[in-house]
Amino acid sequence: MAKKISHLGIAVKDLAASEALFAILLGTDEVHHEVVEDQGVQIASFKIGDSIIELTAPISPDSPIATFLEKRGEGIHHIALEVDDVAAELERLKTKGIRLIDEAPRDGAHNMSIAFLHPKSTGGVLVELCEIKK
Amino acid sequence: MAKKISHLGIAVKDLAASEALFAILLGTDEVHHEVVEDQGVQIASFKIGDSIIELTAPISPDSPIATFLEKRGEGIHHIALEVDDVAAELERLKTKGIRLIDEAPRDGAHNMSIAFLHPKSTGGVLVELCEIKK
Repeated sequence: MAKKISHLGIAVKDLAASEALFAILLGTDEVHHEVVEDQGVQIASFKIGDSIIELTAPISPDSPIATFLEKRGEGIHHIALEVDDVAAELERLKTKGIRLIDEAPRDGAHNMSIAFLHPKSTGGVLVELCEIKK
Repeated sequence: MAKKISHLGIAVKDLAASEALFAILLGTDEVHHEVVEDQGVQIASFKIGDSIIELTAPISPDSPIATFLEKRGEGIHHIALEVDDVAAELERLKTKGIRLIDEAPRDGAHNMSIAFLHPKSTGGVLVELCEIKK
């Protein structure tokens, strides 16, 4: 079961410019920076209530975010739902007919285990499941 | 300042089908239904942690959601940020150069006062500000 919206991933071209914009929009300067080499992205994230708004820009042209930006332009890229056990949720959803991108959990930002579901079977919404590593 | 992600609006074509899908996805059957005549939409919403995931389907062909579905298909439509005072936030953001769709707060779902910002000035993300009515 989804416990909360862990974060909302927003694809941006220019991280510094978008960070300045969202600092105004959200009314906060508290920002956390991270690079996820594995995904070819750099991230600026803002904690808002119980969730995080995560601005994500590509650092390599073959990053999935670079492809997204080319096709769709800047905007909301995915929603991440926190669960207790990503592996168990993948199993549960698979038996319910949900198509998976990741068959097993892998490392994500914020010290999380993550897995993506396929937007074709989730109403056009790219959904990430994530679990805080013990 | 944004206090939390109040809700995430997802545009869907067939509310019943999407509701069944998200009940599986989120692992919950607790759903709230609402019709917002003013916006020409019907809503099915799930409470997840401190936020709401709001599936929105058009009930009239001239609803903004109908237009969105035609242009972009199903997917995340907007993010709603809860603030203490929508009118004051609109004023603050306007002076910072953010373009507004609504110059003044109006009635939304969930007994909220709401206003939309223009995605052209918020990095392609349609942002709604909302305030719980006193």
